[in-house]
Amino acid sequence: MLKQYSLRNLTAPEVAQLVARNTDANHAIQDAVLQIINDVRERGDESLRELTAKFDKIALDKLYLEKDDIEELAMTITRDQQRALEIAFQNIHRFHSVQLRKERSVETMPGVKCWREARPIEKVGLYIPGGSAVLPSTLLMLGVPARIAGCKEIVVCSPPQKSGKINGFVAYCLQLLKIERIYLTGGAQAIAAMAYGTDSIPKVDKIFGPGNQFVTKAKSLVQGMTNVSIDMPAGPSEVLVIADDTASPAFVAADLLAQAEHGPDSQAVLVATSQALIQQVNSELAKQLEVLPRAEIARMAIDNSYAVAVDNLQEALSFSNTYAPEHLILETDEWESLIPRIVNAGSVFLGHLTPESAGDYASGTNHTLPTSGYARSYSGVSVDSFVKKITFQHISSEGLNHIGSTVEILAELEGLHAHKNAVSIRK
Amino acid sequence: MLKQYSLRNLTAPEVAQLVARNTDANHAIQDAVLQIINDVRERGDESLRELTAKFDKIALDKLYLEKDDIEELAMTITRDQQRALEIAFQNIHRFHSVQLRKERSVETMPGVKCWREARPIEKVGLYIPGGSAVLPSTLLMLGVPARIAGCKEIVVCSPPQKSGKINGFVAYCLQLLKIERIYLTGGAQAIAAMAYGTDSIPKVDKIFGPGNQFVTKAKSLVQGMTNVSIDMPAGPSEVLVIADDTASPAFVAADLLAQAEHGPDSQAVLVATSQALIQQVNSELAKQLEVLPRAEIARMAIDNSYAVAVDNLQEALSFSNTYAPEHLILETDEWESLIPRIVNAGSVFLGHLTPESAGDYASGTNHTLPTSGYARSYSGVSVDSFVKKITFQHISSEGLNHIGSTVEILAELEGLHAHKNAVSIRK
Repeated sequence: MLKQYSLRNLTAPEVAQLVARNTDANHAIQDAVLQIINDVRERGDESLRELTAKFDKIALDKLYLEKDDIEELAMTITRDQQRALEIAFQNIHRFHSVQLRKERSVETMPGVKCWREARPIEKVGLYIPGGSAVLPSTLLMLGVPARIAGCKEIVVCSPPQKSGKINGFVAYCLQLLKIERIYLTGGAQAIAAMAYGTDSIPKVDKIFGPGNQFVTKAKSLVQGMTNVSIDMPAGPSEVLVIADDTASPAFVAADLLAQAEHGPDSQAVLVATSQALIQQVNSELAKQLEVLPRAEIARMAIDNSYAVAVDNLQEALSFSNTYAPEHLILETDEWESLIPRIVNAGSVFLGHLTPESAGDYASGTNHTLPTSGYARSYSGVSVDSFVKKITFQHISSEGLNHIGSTVEILAELEGLHAHKNAVSIRK
Repeated sequence: MLKQYSLRNLTAPEVAQLVARNTDANHAIQDAVLQIINDVRERGDESLRELTAKFDKIALDKLYLEKDDIEELAMTITRDQQRALEIAFQNIHRFHSVQLRKERSVETMPGVKCWREARPIEKVGLYIPGGSAVLPSTLLMLGVPARIAGCKEIVVCSPPQKSGKINGFVAYCLQLLKIERIYLTGGAQAIAAMAYGTDSIPKVDKIFGPGNQFVTKAKSLVQGMTNVSIDMPAGPSEVLVIADDTASPAFVAADLLAQAEHGPDSQAVLVATSQALIQQVNSELAKQLEVLPRAEIARMAIDNSYAVAVDNLQEALSFSNTYAPEHLILETDEWESLIPRIVNAGSVFLGHLTPESAGDYASGTNHTLPTSGYARSYSGVSVDSFVKKITFQHISSEGLNHIGSTVEILAELEGLHAHKNAVSIRK
């Protein structure tokens, strides 16, 4: 059952309390992760083998699989499954390929030409979670934009399965992406390996991908300890559903549960224009939970979630912008007019027939998104995340005539005479 | 005098050593900064007043200046200075305003429509360094893209001058940007104030701007401790000049010194196609240093710098890409053909008449750039830095027919049945 609040009765500090996600540093996790990072940095592959034996219960000789193994594993899945992965790949590719466009050059003054050019980040590391749920979709979500950007070296790490290998779905996605090697290491140790490099695993410039608390903490830590960068800080997944009287309680409940089954710390928030709707959704939740394989997990997440009754859709959007959800679903007939008012969200699902799970897999948008309120300042992963934009400028002698004295005056007023001289000496 | 190396005689580990910047954590700084952050978080404005008295030697009553004060201060500068700041403002505005463009919507399958829309980050904090050198140019570099992005609240912090106010140049830039308030606080305490909020200073979503080691450390720390984000990790400024026989040793020396005068920890690297050129540049350096007001600082930086002789421009570019400089100057006749080979750099200055100082002030490009090798994965500040891009998707009933079974198959193979049900229930 979702806890129920009425926005009308909440004070500002109570709202702030409701939208706050748990951001307390867990020092027990931090200490364990720091120890892993230092061990991998010092002992490299040897440490990775030991940690894989300890955490994944597998003794690995070679720390990676290559083309032949991948080919063999990819053949173990059905043609229907292959076809579904292909469609997801194509849609993700279609959506992301419009993101890289040339920008026009600007002549800011006669003879002063400035422009930006994108360059791929050369070496990127993709972390694909394994363990209880293996997520081939995450490999597509990270691998496709990396390929479109043109990254030279794509290092993929994922914990090995009980077989000491990877599953066939991940293998098939590697084939679709033309990636010929995968490193069999997971957890904080995989992040450390990509940040520092080991004999087997190359050091990368930027690390991408979701993971559990250990992986997330490791990403934050290596970002501060090395000059590797990361896609974004990540926390437990979350959805906020805005529903009015046009919504189907069954659809709403299904969407909340799709979020809830991710993990006990997932959050599913319902913002509804009536108390009656909240009650209907609650009974649908009870009904659907009965037949859900991961009901135990989902029930814990639902207990960790809540519903807020509001007077109208404007209030609903205002609450949503304050919450800044990773996923926002508008289960309303009138979704189009609401779009301009959405300020903070990761990915938005419009109308009654756009379930969030479509975006998780196959609509084409990226599912690696900012959580925990980071949607206030972060975008989800896109081709932009795999490039940097370099600025260029060229000044002709005409340009130097136009801009010279301005630079000289500004350098002088900041007290930087060598800056001034770099212009004066050229005049 | 620049230390001299010949690339031909260097081993790979020696090159790695040369391009490494000092990234060691200084725990003395970290501890001091953590104490400041915690104090500001707990005691707010009271702590800010005490720290300003301690570090800036000024007893402040009100922690900010408003419109009338700003207007008065702005009138204290000359018309020529105003005009130079206006031209810089215009050029920066021209260059940055092409950066925000609508992306087209993509129909990934019939009935499945996906697109991205940019939204301004609502509350941004700009840190403008004060102290020995006051940098009004930094206010323009951060304020102009924030305005173009449409940020609702722009919080500017800068340490007070001896007068207890700000200087006229900064005041005039505030007027150009239509920012009507500036907060008189600097250092780590300013960063803490913007991250947590105090009675006077609003909490922001993202913090921008360069600063000394304390400011930089504070930005890294609050990024991990709160859900505020930062523009980029920043370190000492740096330039790499590539010069061949067409270069003027005097221009090259002037550019190296413009970098060197920033601070003793700045780095100015020369990559030249001949030893003779390096010697000529070294004598020019000696000559120009004699008349430089900040010669003492520049000399320390030059001692901290070096020159590398290479056989050809291809080698020069390869070294530069390994170094990943904040600023790259190509003092060659043949710069155009080299552009495609530039992979890692913050901002690039092309040809003999494009001094780096033009980009610092007025060419139009941004001067807030990645240092310390972060150019491998970070871009400089742009309008992109002040927005986030939200993905949207709408699926029609035709779309659901097309995409439904793909989502169902993929959800099932990942073992997420509620994800599958969110589609099935709608069919």
